[in-house]
Amino acid sequence: MRCAVILAGGSGTRLWPASRRARPKQFLAVTGGDTLIAATVARARSAAGRVMVVTAADQASLVTAAVDDVEVVAEPAARNTAAALGLAAVHALARDPDAVIGAFPADHHIGDPVAFGVAVERAFATAERDDVIVTIGIAPTRPDTGFGYLELGDGEVAPGVRPVARFVEKPAQAVAEQYLAGGRHLWNGGMFFVRAARLLAELDRFVPATGAAMRAIAAALAHGDATAEIAARYPTLPSVSIDVGVMERTTGVVAVPGDFGWSDVGSWTTVAELAETDAAGNAIVGDAVVVDGRDNLVVSDPGAAVAVVGVSGVAVIRAGDAVLVVPVARAQEVRAAVDALVAAGLERFL
Amino acid sequence: MRCAVILAGGSGTRLWPASRRARPKQFLAVTGGDTLIAATVARARSAAGRVMVVTAADQASLVTAAVDDVEVVAEPAARNTAAALGLAAVHALARDPDAVIGAFPADHHIGDPVAFGVAVERAFATAERDDVIVTIGIAPTRPDTGFGYLELGDGEVAPGVRPVARFVEKPAQAVAEQYLAGGRHLWNGGMFFVRAARLLAELDRFVPATGAAMRAIAAALAHGDATAEIAARYPTLPSVSIDVGVMERTTGVVAVPGDFGWSDVGSWTTVAELAETDAAGNAIVGDAVVVDGRDNLVVSDPGAAVAVVGVSGVAVIRAGDAVLVVPVARAQEVRAAVDALVAAGLERFL
Repeated sequence: MRCAVILAGGSGTRLWPASRRARPKQFLAVTGGDTLIAATVARARSAAGRVMVVTAADQASLVTAAVDDVEVVAEPAARNTAAALGLAAVHALARDPDAVIGAFPADHHIGDPVAFGVAVERAFATAERDDVIVTIGIAPTRPDTGFGYLELGDGEVAPGVRPVARFVEKPAQAVAEQYLAGGRHLWNGGMFFVRAARLLAELDRFVPATGAAMRAIAAALAHGDATAEIAARYPTLPSVSIDVGVMERTTGVVAVPGDFGWSDVGSWTTVAELAETDAAGNAIVGDAVVVDGRDNLVVSDPGAAVAVVGVSGVAVIRAGDAVLVVPVARAQEVRAAVDALVAAGLERFL
Repeated sequence: MRCAVILAGGSGTRLWPASRRARPKQFLAVTGGDTLIAATVARARSAAGRVMVVTAADQASLVTAAVDDVEVVAEPAARNTAAALGLAAVHALARDPDAVIGAFPADHHIGDPVAFGVAVERAFATAERDDVIVTIGIAPTRPDTGFGYLELGDGEVAPGVRPVARFVEKPAQAVAEQYLAGGRHLWNGGMFFVRAARLLAELDRFVPATGAAMRAIAAALAHGDATAEIAARYPTLPSVSIDVGVMERTTGVVAVPGDFGWSDVGSWTTVAELAETDAAGNAIVGDAVVVDGRDNLVVSDPGAAVAVVGVSGVAVIRAGDAVLVVPVARAQEVRAAVDALVAAGLERFL
């Protein structure tokens, strides 16, 4: 059985004011259609027999409101992706000892669903056939210093499947430029495919505290209910990502290079790039008008309107009780706005 | 008896999105304190024994919510200031045949209340003593083409009281510049002081349909209730301003020149001029932060927040369900935003 695991534990305010501490990015419909998590689940359904969403307990109700008919596994505390994937593996194994899980972040955008489907099928099939960890690496389009990278080894292990020489964390600018020029590096998009049993074995080896906890949770689940075991174990787990905990240490990982219009929707600049624009280059989401202005990103929410006159290259984001105005090219500086709001005693708007 | 008449029939969207068709400018607290109408009523109370507010029937509840203890005279239809002042005169006369009314627009800002008080006292006293129409003219500070002007005659008819040679409507730019340079012209700020009986006589002469209607309304009022008469007469009245209907045609008008930080608060540009600014020149009303930006006007409403990053010289106005972003210097172009909203089928936000 293939089980898609949607990792919906993300938080943060990089898309403030649309994203809030209590309503992270995955619950936004940033480009006007489905929420990111709903789109992720829809893609996952087309590629796997089961879909499971792992999320923080306090976001479980947001998940069930955003997507129908998925198994929601709630984490009582945020312990990063090694624990989240371990918990998913335990739940998948409880249904099928041969389960293969495919992990997808809940808050990414995919521009080319067909190419995405091709890559996912190849990754699942490789994980099933060869019992290896498979990742989908993203062909980089710029020397981004905000992502981890994976370095490909020589040759192919199967058609469209490359060996991974190593995982590397977020590089410096000069290094990122070398990576882009060299053509051997892919972005680590956080998509992993592996037999559930194999993942637990990797955790036993490289993150043993998490591995032991997952064995105990699995035993409880086999006896009917693991709620108490999860509640007792989870807060004690190390907070470590699957990348750092396992991928950077294990061997034999392979990668399916993918080029399918992937975006982590990491800032309003990215949203502006993804959005459809009018003849003047304005991207408009919701009810809004732009008069005598070009290349703006204007986002309003339902029941509200935004009017922009005589301004160009600016992101105007209205979401709920807050408004952000920032040049599109500087939208990653929303961090400065967040800091200023905290300093001004306006943290309640985050 | 002196009766201050607050003309609160104004409508319009020059301060959209704060002002709406259903909530005109006089009901806004644009600089953060009282609403304009509350401030106007407070000033009027200090200068006259009675205060009466003439407003559209559908705004009467807004008036009573905004100000306490005033007589509200509701017009069943908007028929401009000749009718509104006639109706006020009729109501004032019903209480006192010697009543002198002083008319004040509800939506203006006064920066120097003491100087305002001096001018109002002089105007009321002149109207009482000489039985003439007195206007307070505003010393112009720029060649504004958005106001009517009044041209002073030579000499003084009393200390600080000048004869008015003529009223002139909104001039062309070159003419406005001549007016400013010549020193003989004042802005017509819409403040008039006259015995109520004299005003009705002027209406009889220059706007006879309105004069006749007011006589009929007065007769009904003398018999206890003029509601039906007002409802029947009002829709038939010509829609004409007191300026065009009477002031430009009658003779013997005198003016008290006033210089008391007057503003008609006609655009967000004006609001920015009136607002207090921080060291970076940012004027902030409500909960808002500006990071790396200068000379912005940022207005938020209660319970909401605005963050501006890396932008200067821009007005960001959040009010209710709408947001406006426009360079401060071009804020009078809110008209273009309003037109664009109508064209986009978003008239419901006006």
